[in-house]
Amino acid sequence: MKVIDCVGIVTPCKLTFDSPLRLQSGQILPQFELMIETYGKLNRDRNNAVLICHALSGNHHVAGYYSREDKYPGWWDNMIGPGKPVDTNRFFVVGLNNLGGCHGSSGPLSIDPLSGVPYGANFPMVTVKDWVNSQAMLADRLGIQQWAAIMGGSLGGMQALQWAIDKPQRLRHALIIASAPKLSTQNIAFNDVARQAIITDPDFCQGQYHLHNLLPRRGLRIARMMGHITYLAEDGLGRKFGRQRQQDNYQYNYNIEFAVESYLRHQGKKFADAFDANSYLLMTKALDYFDPAREFGGDLVQAVQRITAKIFIASFSSDWRFSPARSQELLDALVSANKSVQYIALESVNGHDAFLMEDKHYHTAIRVYFNNIARELI
Amino acid sequence: MKVIDCVGIVTPCKLTFDSPLRLQSGQILPQFELMIETYGKLNRDRNNAVLICHALSGNHHVAGYYSREDKYPGWWDNMIGPGKPVDTNRFFVVGLNNLGGCHGSSGPLSIDPLSGVPYGANFPMVTVKDWVNSQAMLADRLGIQQWAAIMGGSLGGMQALQWAIDKPQRLRHALIIASAPKLSTQNIAFNDVARQAIITDPDFCQGQYHLHNLLPRRGLRIARMMGHITYLAEDGLGRKFGRQRQQDNYQYNYNIEFAVESYLRHQGKKFADAFDANSYLLMTKALDYFDPAREFGGDLVQAVQRITAKIFIASFSSDWRFSPARSQELLDALVSANKSVQYIALESVNGHDAFLMEDKHYHTAIRVYFNNIARELI
Repeated sequence: MKVIDCVGIVTPCKLTFDSPLRLQSGQILPQFELMIETYGKLNRDRNNAVLICHALSGNHHVAGYYSREDKYPGWWDNMIGPGKPVDTNRFFVVGLNNLGGCHGSSGPLSIDPLSGVPYGANFPMVTVKDWVNSQAMLADRLGIQQWAAIMGGSLGGMQALQWAIDKPQRLRHALIIASAPKLSTQNIAFNDVARQAIITDPDFCQGQYHLHNLLPRRGLRIARMMGHITYLAEDGLGRKFGRQRQQDNYQYNYNIEFAVESYLRHQGKKFADAFDANSYLLMTKALDYFDPAREFGGDLVQAVQRITAKIFIASFSSDWRFSPARSQELLDALVSANKSVQYIALESVNGHDAFLMEDKHYHTAIRVYFNNIARELI
Repeated sequence: MKVIDCVGIVTPCKLTFDSPLRLQSGQILPQFELMIETYGKLNRDRNNAVLICHALSGNHHVAGYYSREDKYPGWWDNMIGPGKPVDTNRFFVVGLNNLGGCHGSSGPLSIDPLSGVPYGANFPMVTVKDWVNSQAMLADRLGIQQWAAIMGGSLGGMQALQWAIDKPQRLRHALIIASAPKLSTQNIAFNDVARQAIITDPDFCQGQYHLHNLLPRRGLRIARMMGHITYLAEDGLGRKFGRQRQQDNYQYNYNIEFAVESYLRHQGKKFADAFDANSYLLMTKALDYFDPAREFGGDLVQAVQRITAKIFIASFSSDWRFSPARSQELLDALVSANKSVQYIALESVNGHDAFLMEDKHYHTAIRVYFNNIARELI
């Protein structure tokens, strides 16, 4: 544990919601649980709350450590903490694991109350709109009528945007980082290959692998390895690994030979050991379906018309998963709709993953933005 | 069969080579066979021969049809034929299936003369240099001392480059299209994911699937689906499929939903039915290993120093597998080495696959280049 500017030891908390949630698909979750973490204190006016929405493989553990022995902090610890860009001395920060996830919130690993066994593949498909609705119930529970800000990168940014459209009165700022107003054809194509890798793994057992004491590890490994390539920039990957090999001579076999192979296979294995395949499938489908303009005849300007929150958009130059052009699409729509919006196009060699990394310009931009939000609180 | 400007009905031919071929790996092929096709006539001076080198999944069937009922011609039929850019009225064109392939040349599907059963995973790994050596033996057999030109796209272009470096006296022109002087880290990373998809398919049986009457179709499908995304441009894919769906409403399941999914899965299935998994593994490894500068301390200028052939390079703007920048690396090295080189950077929305497609500017450039070669023959 590195204690400097850190929220310190944190403890997650599971909240149960007994009122039914009607999902976009028409299915109903009669009850559900959300795993959350909070940092900082909610002020007397209850107006300093910040919601952090996670991306594909994130969860509620956004900052801090679980114990003094813990090697790694939460996934956005460089961003959130005392004195950090999102300053927990001033803001009450809430992280949650989304519905359908595999880190404590209701999802495929949870027991289906009707059958008494884990949902597995029977857990209903959830969408970004469903997440926003469940997060609004969470806000109600925490006594937060209006978030000071909702912030997320990638799929997390999509949730911030959907909040701003669907529940305009319930947030003052949305920070949409390394995101897009909808997936491109290429994004959908990569997601489908990832899903096919999982679904055609013989150990997938039509999603009921838990009943057979199996895990579709092969498929999940392949999906993650491929995904990982799309998170990194060609340039950054080249600088980091180049054509380095474990041995100078060619080996003429299929063992790990190039350094990048070792890195990718490690990432794939780590992920397959830690993530649930059904959750991964659900999350990629939520990405595919995200398209707030769809309810407005495909017109994004119409979709953002009802937004009252101020919008902050950031993109990274080498991000080819959600390129700066995708952020600009959203920017253009917001400007056309006469909305308050601020956009920063950051330089980076770190590709899509740049949103998770510490960078002076990036963090300064977020810090300044939150300083301004803090000023509104006084 | 569309007969206009076509070489017509063609017949492949298998040639047996009984002298041993020492491979770059140190292994020796005591004998081997090459499947070839030829179009046009070798002239009396034997100086009008053009060798076509194929890419990852290509073969010897470059132009023409096998029968009047044949639906599709050879893979580069739009480029090669009477009156076409590579005019078979003037040139004698040779296509071959490379060693290690699965369309008739010696490869994993061939019977190992030592064991009497198919080589399978025991077929030795071959490199671009090995292919050049086997192609030189083919030239000897055909009585071709010097090729008028050697031409290829992608991995095919790498063979043309390696020929120019390794056997400078044996060709007058090399056409290197949509290629690169070596793979990038990202290219290697995608190849490793593809190989892992195949190797971890339970039906792969460590490459001896033929002994178990199995085929690692799942892995090959995934590898090809992913590969296919990298052959197409984001922009072209978007124009072709966008976010079109089979049905307007979201289906909330994992069946084919978006049009691009249907397209990709079809491509994957078609490939898995037609291509051998061990061949695919071999070919991707030949790509990874290709690096002609490596023998010259990593100095590409040194590597191309011995070239005497004239070089033609073409790239396509939306090709992100081997981007125009990769062609320019090669161009820069050739210019630095004071070589005769001509480069055309073509505009296209078709990504890497553009090299296979008919395009006016592209085909005119090739036509003009071959007209000039033809003038040298007189």
